[in-house]
Amino acid sequence: MSENVKTAEELQERLIANHFNEWMGLKIVGLDEEKIEISMVWREEMISNPKARVTHGGILGALVDVAADFMIAAKFGAPAPTVDLRVDYHRAAMPGDLKAVGRIVRAGGTLATAEAEVFDGDGKLVASGRGVYFTGALKRSS
Amino acid sequence: MSENVKTAEELQERLIANHFNEWMGLKIVGLDEEKIEISMVWREEMISNPKARVTHGGILGALVDVAADFMIAAKFGAPAPTVDLRVDYHRAAMPGDLKAVGRIVRAGGTLATAEAEVFDGDGKLVASGRGVYFTGALKRSS
Amino acid sequence: MSENVKTAEELQERLIANHFNEWMGLKIVGLDEEKIEISMVWREEMISNPKARVTHGGILGALVDVAADFMIAAKFGAPAPTVDLRVDYHRAAMPGDLKAVGRIVRAGGTLATAEAEVFDGDGKLVASGRGVYFTGALKRSS
Amino acid sequence: MSENVKTAEELQERLIANHFNEWMGLKIVGLDEEKIEISMVWREEMISNPKARVTHGGILGALVDVAADFMIAAKFGAPAPTVDLRVDYHRAAMPGDLKAVGRIVRAGGTLATAEAEVFDGDGKLVASGRGVYFTGALKRSS
Repeated sequence: MSENVKTAEELQERLIANHFNEWMGLKIVGLDEEKIEISMVWREEMISNPKARVTHGGILGALVDVAADFMIAAKFGAPAPTVDLRVDYHRAAMPGDLKAVGRIVRAGGTLATAEAEVFDGDGKLVASGRGVYFTGALKRSS
Repeated sequence: MSENVKTAEELQERLIANHFNEWMGLKIVGLDEEKIEISMVWREEMISNPKARVTHGGILGALVDVAADFMIAAKFGAPAPTVDLRVDYHRAAMPGDLKAVGRIVRAGGTLATAEAEVFDGDGKLVASGRGVYFTGALKRSS
Repeated sequence: MSENVKTAEELQERLIANHFNEWMGLKIVGLDEEKIEISMVWREEMISNPKARVTHGGILGALVDVAADFMIAAKFGAPAPTVDLRVDYHRAAMPGDLKAVGRIVRAGGTLATAEAEVFDGDGKLVASGRGVYFTGALKRSS
Repeated sequence: MSENVKTAEELQERLIANHFNEWMGLKIVGLDEEKIEISMVWREEMISNPKARVTHGGILGALVDVAADFMIAAKFGAPAPTVDLRVDYHRAAMPGDLKAVGRIVRAGGTLATAEAEVFDGDGKLVASGRGVYFTGALKRSS
C-alpha cells in the first residue's frame, strides 16, 4: 500500500467541513499507513426505536462510509464519491459514543474498495461494511 | 403478497417516534399494497462535500433503509431489525427535499428482503438499494 | 432508457462464447427495451448440499450477474466488467432449469447498476440481486 | 471466538460431497481458529470473456461464499444457508488455480457474518466479499 499523502490534521479539517459529519461530532483519533480511527459523539436525535433506544442504522451506515472514505482520502488526497455501500448490523448500538475504523481493501486509480468497523464504548463490534469509491473522479477535479 | 396490516396513519406515528426519522422530517405520503412513499425535508446539516453541497450518502442510505423497513412494517405490523443494507448511489443529490419509495422483494417470516429508491425533487433517481430484515424478531416480541 | 443496440441473436452468440455460460446452458429467451430473459439448463454438477440436493448459491449468483450484465450489453454493445455484486437468496432452488430476468437500474457511461431475479420452473423467486458494472471500460476498448 | 468444532479432514469430506465444490476441485489447505484456506483447481469451463480469457465472476463469487461458509462450518459444525452475499471484483483472474481465505466477522446463533478473500497464483487479491449466514437453521436440523 502506498504512503499516506494527508495527515490526520489535514483530514480533520476536511472531515468536519462536511456538515453532517460535524453534526455527528466526528473526530480523527488515529491514523497510520493501515487504518484510520474516527470517533463519533452520540446525540439524542440519533435514536431509532424509541422504546429500545438503539442508535439508528443510518448513523452506523454513515460511519462505515465516512471511515472507509477517509482512509481513501489519506491515500488519495481527498474523499472519493461513494459508488455503493454495504453495511452489516451485528448488534444494537445503545446510546453512547461510537468509534469507526477504516481500512483500504484495494486501492485502484479508477475504483477503490475500502471497509470499516464500528465499535461501541465497550469495544464491541456493532456494525461493519465496505464500499466502492470512484477514485477516478479525484483525478478529473485536480 | 399479503394485505397491509397497518394504515399510513398508524405507521406515521411509529415513523416519527423514531428521533432520527423525525430529525429528517419523514412523512408517509403514499401507501398501497405494493409500495410505501416517504418524503424527507432537507436541512443544511445534511450537506456532505461543502463545496459541491451534495447531500450526505448516510442520509440517502438511511432513507433506503427506512422506506424498505416501513413497507415491511405495513405487512408485519412493525419495522424489523435491519440485518444488512446495500445502497447504490446513482447521482449527486443536490440540496432539496427527497422522496423514497419502498417495496417488498420477499416477505419471509424469519427473514424478509425489501428494496427502495430515492428520488430528488425533479423525480430523478439519486440512490437505490435493498436490505434484509429479521422479521423473526417481531414474533418474539409479540 | 436508450434503445437496445444489440439483438437477442447477437447477444446469444456473445453469451455462449463465454465457456462458463455455455456450461450452464444459458440461452436468451426474451429481450425487449426493459428486460432480458435468460434460461439455464440444470445439471447434476450444480448440486450444493448433497442431502437436500439444492442448487449451489454460486450458480444463482452467476445467473444474477450474467442477466444483469447482458441487459447492459443490450444497451452498450458488450457486457461490462463487474465491479461488485450483491445476491439475496430467497428460497432453496431444487433441481431443475432456472430463468433469470435482468433490468437496468441506472445506465451511466462510466458506471452502471443493473439487477436481476432468478425464478425456478414453478415461477417462484429463488434469488435476486444487483451489480455495478464498469461501462467506462467499453469505451476504452472500442 | 469459540474453538473450532470440526477438523480440516471432517470439513473436507463435507466440502466435496457438494457436487459443485467437487467440480471446482476445492480442497481445504489450511485451518486454524481464525481462518480457513481453500484451494481451487482451474478448468477451461471457468473462462468468461473468451478473448481476455478471464475467470468467470460466478466462480469467484462461489469461492467467496464457500470459504466464508466453511469457516462458519468449522465453528458451528456444518455450513449454514447463505442469506445474502456481496462480492467485490478487484482484478481480472487469469487462468490458473486460486485460493480463498475465509474468516468470521460476527458469529451469532441466529445469523452470522463471514468474509473471504480470493487470491491468484501470484498471491494477488482478485476478489473479496462477505455473506450473511442463517446459523439458526443448524439448530433446527440437529
